Amino acid sequence: MSSPQVHIYKVAMTCEGCSGAVQRVLNKLKDKGVQDISIDLPAQRVQVKTTLSSEEILDVIKKTGKQTEFVETL
Amino acid sequence: MSSPQVHIYKVAMTCEGCSGAVQRVLNKLKDKGVQDISIDLPAQRVQVKTTLSSEEILDVIKKTGKQTEFVETL
Repeated sequence: MSSPQVHIYKVAMTCEGCSGAVQRVLNKLKDKGVQDISIDLPAQRVQVKTTLSSEEILDVIKKTGKQTEFVETL
Repeated sequence: MSSPQVHIYKVAMTCEGCSGAVQRVLNKLKDKGVQDISIDLPAQRVQVKTTLSSEEILDVIKKTGKQTEFVETL
């Protein structure tokens, strides 16, 4: 089990329906390695504390259909 | 190859970012049985002409994280 890291993504979100959708798909991974999710709608930033890789999380966020890019791992 | 049907879904969409996300995930199936997509944002309705089953399309829309329910097949 690797120790958790915090990955940050830029996600095109324009309303609370958008950010809620991202929150929901990430919430589904709460038992599978996602420990904490923080979404800043005005800043278009999604921060995920997780033992999963940045690529795995990116793929999950992309499934929402939102334009998404990886920014950095803290 | 079954002939296409039109399935209708109610999808919680509150802005054009929401409807754009639904459009994008369905567009990815354009070579895999989805023939036409029509989204009515104010009415919260998504209409899909496809050879895929209503369940298959429902699963794809749900992956967006939007609250979604099947309404009817025309």
